[in-house]
Amino acid sequence: MTSQSFMPEALGAGEPGTLAALLTCFAAFGGLKTGGVTRLCASAADGAARDAFATLLRDAGAHVVTDAVGNQFGVFTLTDAADAPLVMMGSHLDSQPRGGRFDGVLGVLAAFEAGRRLMLAKRAGASFNANFCAVNWTNEEGARFRPSLLGSGTFTGKIAVADALASIDDDGVTLGAALAAIGHDGVDAPPPVPACYVEMHVEQGGLLEAESVPVGVVTRNWGAAKMDVRFTGEQAHTGPAKMHARRDALFAAAQLICDVRAIADEWPERIHTSVGRLVVQPNSPNVVPAQTDLSVELRAVDDAILREAEARILACIDAAAKRANVGVQILSRTSRPIRELPPAVGNLVRTCARAAGVQSRDIDTISGHDALSLLDVCPTGLMFVPSVGGIAHNENEETHGEDLDTGMTVLMGAAYRLCVSRGDPVAAAAWEPRR
Amino acid sequence: MTSQSFMPEALGAGEPGTLAALLTCFAAFGGLKTGGVTRLCASAADGAARDAFATLLRDAGAHVVTDAVGNQFGVFTLTDAADAPLVMMGSHLDSQPRGGRFDGVLGVLAAFEAGRRLMLAKRAGASFNANFCAVNWTNEEGARFRPSLLGSGTFTGKIAVADALASIDDDGVTLGAALAAIGHDGVDAPPPVPACYVEMHVEQGGLLEAESVPVGVVTRNWGAAKMDVRFTGEQAHTGPAKMHARRDALFAAAQLICDVRAIADEWPERIHTSVGRLVVQPNSPNVVPAQTDLSVELRAVDDAILREAEARILACIDAAAKRANVGVQILSRTSRPIRELPPAVGNLVRTCARAAGVQSRDIDTISGHDALSLLDVCPTGLMFVPSVGGIAHNENEETHGEDLDTGMTVLMGAAYRLCVSRGDPVAAAAWEPRR
Repeated sequence: MTSQSFMPEALGAGEPGTLAALLTCFAAFGGLKTGGVTRLCASAADGAARDAFATLLRDAGAHVVTDAVGNQFGVFTLTDAADAPLVMMGSHLDSQPRGGRFDGVLGVLAAFEAGRRLMLAKRAGASFNANFCAVNWTNEEGARFRPSLLGSGTFTGKIAVADALASIDDDGVTLGAALAAIGHDGVDAPPPVPACYVEMHVEQGGLLEAESVPVGVVTRNWGAAKMDVRFTGEQAHTGPAKMHARRDALFAAAQLICDVRAIADEWPERIHTSVGRLVVQPNSPNVVPAQTDLSVELRAVDDAILREAEARILACIDAAAKRANVGVQILSRTSRPIRELPPAVGNLVRTCARAAGVQSRDIDTISGHDALSLLDVCPTGLMFVPSVGGIAHNENEETHGEDLDTGMTVLMGAAYRLCVSRGDPVAAAAWEPRR
Repeated sequence: MTSQSFMPEALGAGEPGTLAALLTCFAAFGGLKTGGVTRLCASAADGAARDAFATLLRDAGAHVVTDAVGNQFGVFTLTDAADAPLVMMGSHLDSQPRGGRFDGVLGVLAAFEAGRRLMLAKRAGASFNANFCAVNWTNEEGARFRPSLLGSGTFTGKIAVADALASIDDDGVTLGAALAAIGHDGVDAPPPVPACYVEMHVEQGGLLEAESVPVGVVTRNWGAAKMDVRFTGEQAHTGPAKMHARRDALFAAAQLICDVRAIADEWPERIHTSVGRLVVQPNSPNVVPAQTDLSVELRAVDDAILREAEARILACIDAAAKRANVGVQILSRTSRPIRELPPAVGNLVRTCARAAGVQSRDIDTISGHDALSLLDVCPTGLMFVPSVGGIAHNENEETHGEDLDTGMTVLMGAAYRLCVSRGDPVAAAAWEPRR
């Protein structure tokens, strides 16, 4: 039996419902009665999900590697060739507070399932020219620790390991301490940079569902600018303290939140703005707030808009501080440029969809994904499956079972083609089964 | 030896520094490196302070009574007369987060010290016509549990015991459970309504210091209107979610905070407004906030202003909800009318200051104090000592040692005079020592 005797699409379509079943199992880790999950990075629930992922990988014949920031890699050795490249797929197991049961975990379990099936194929006699790795990236969400895409950003060298481990949550706990507490502070060297990385994710928008297209091929990401801002006022009694003498850090934050929203109205549909996080100190009804920390996000489809919006926000921050007579610090500032994803990998996903007999369409990603980290170092693809109602970062997030099966079939096709093509997306797209 | 042989002012002035020493000891309970305290109601630190207060009382010969909401009463039996009325003095041991080491605890320890000295006088042969009670009221601050003045409001019947015990903090812990955890969920019946209640407190403003007057006689309280407001939006991803479809609970809160501040500018020096507390759910940088809870306070020196401001805030709440497309609930609403304090008790305090050879001045209280609860049921007095720089609800709160001694002398005089005058403030002010 040679690799040519396998039909990758048949391999993918062989077990409908498997991915859905795995997702149901993983929804128990941090599971909520509503069907959603709260599985914050390096929490006990995340630890349980990580343990299960590692067990699944080992049972399927993979070698599990955990690096210093807790990224988990399940390496499936499909070939004995010493110079064999690596094909990597994955996403993240962490969730938002009261988040959905598909966001992230879908891509991790689909990658696991792809690896498991490739290993079965190898054991059945198939031969491959690349090894395969299923990965769970630490702290993609940025909900508990900042920045988001932390684990993948560490893998690509954008973020220093020491900085990542020193990141603190709102209770002052470091990522390093949190990972140690759940036993996922690894000591292993991560695998090498892959020849190709492909991630499957839920769309988190309503376009695919509205058009009844089961597969989105991401061709471009929106740019993003994020900043954590701290206003520092002075604690005082809300009763006797004279209004003109108050230095109210929450008043400054409130003005900025209104300004951030107003900026979105200037370029409708071209920029999304938000403040999702605000921490008030000391947060007592009758104390003038001494400190507010808030996280501002801007996302735009146009570089010029993003730059102008960012400059305006910086001016608004200063104006708000002045008006409230408080101090201000920009604690951190990160940005992500607008980029095109490599056409060759997009073309591979399109080819796999066509081979599976389903439609696909090109699509932007507005949200960040680990694939956008990997884009810095290797040919990277990102594919979306539909989200019911476009609902995301919400307990009611949903993807239909048939869309899961379709996504799995397409991803499986890409995994198979890449692993018989030394991870080269052009060769993988051109690959034809002998019949 | 008869009661007439005592000079109450001499009794008060006999031990300068005692009150300051007690305050230093109590600053250790929840003490911060800065000299301030975080001693939230029914916390472990509050429990330690309560335990120490009870021990001090018992050692000084008082009978300690703890009622169902944790109010602690130290009853000094000064007379055997069955119909003897009660004179009560006190304040609260709880503090704001990072609060000062004088706010509240000053009045509790001064009351204790007054009781201790009266008991010593009785043991030395003095005779009295009233018993004396030093009280620590539960949750005056309203920092951890709402409403503020909870313990004193329960004593006067304004708040039902069951409602008080069911009050929850921001972590969902009830006051009842928190009191049980520190062993201060009492089963005793509280003492009867006193014939007269007097409270000593730090001014929390800069007037006394600016005028170098050591004693403020509170003649009026500003009115207050407080409300807890909840905006309910919908959790969504801050990236892909369309701006027009967002239901952002934090955006609604931010608009309201700006509106609340703007209202203060319309009646300068006549109204103080604030939002000191804001809790955001789920509070993640890339999640559109689903819920915000905030506490709005208005305090005014004029009833008409207060009513108009309150009506405007209610309109602003609706407008903010509409603009952000979120739901809104007023979770609770309390108010306190503008009132004059009984002239007879004020006159007693003034008389005691004069007898001690120090100046006093009439003053408003803008902040709420337990004395304002007691005002509902008995003749009540409130006296202020200076706050350095008017700093309040802040770790840097300070009152000079000489001002503590002066305040203690004046309060001691009032306690003595009331206890030899059946708690009648008119008779107490008219009392003259035989020389």
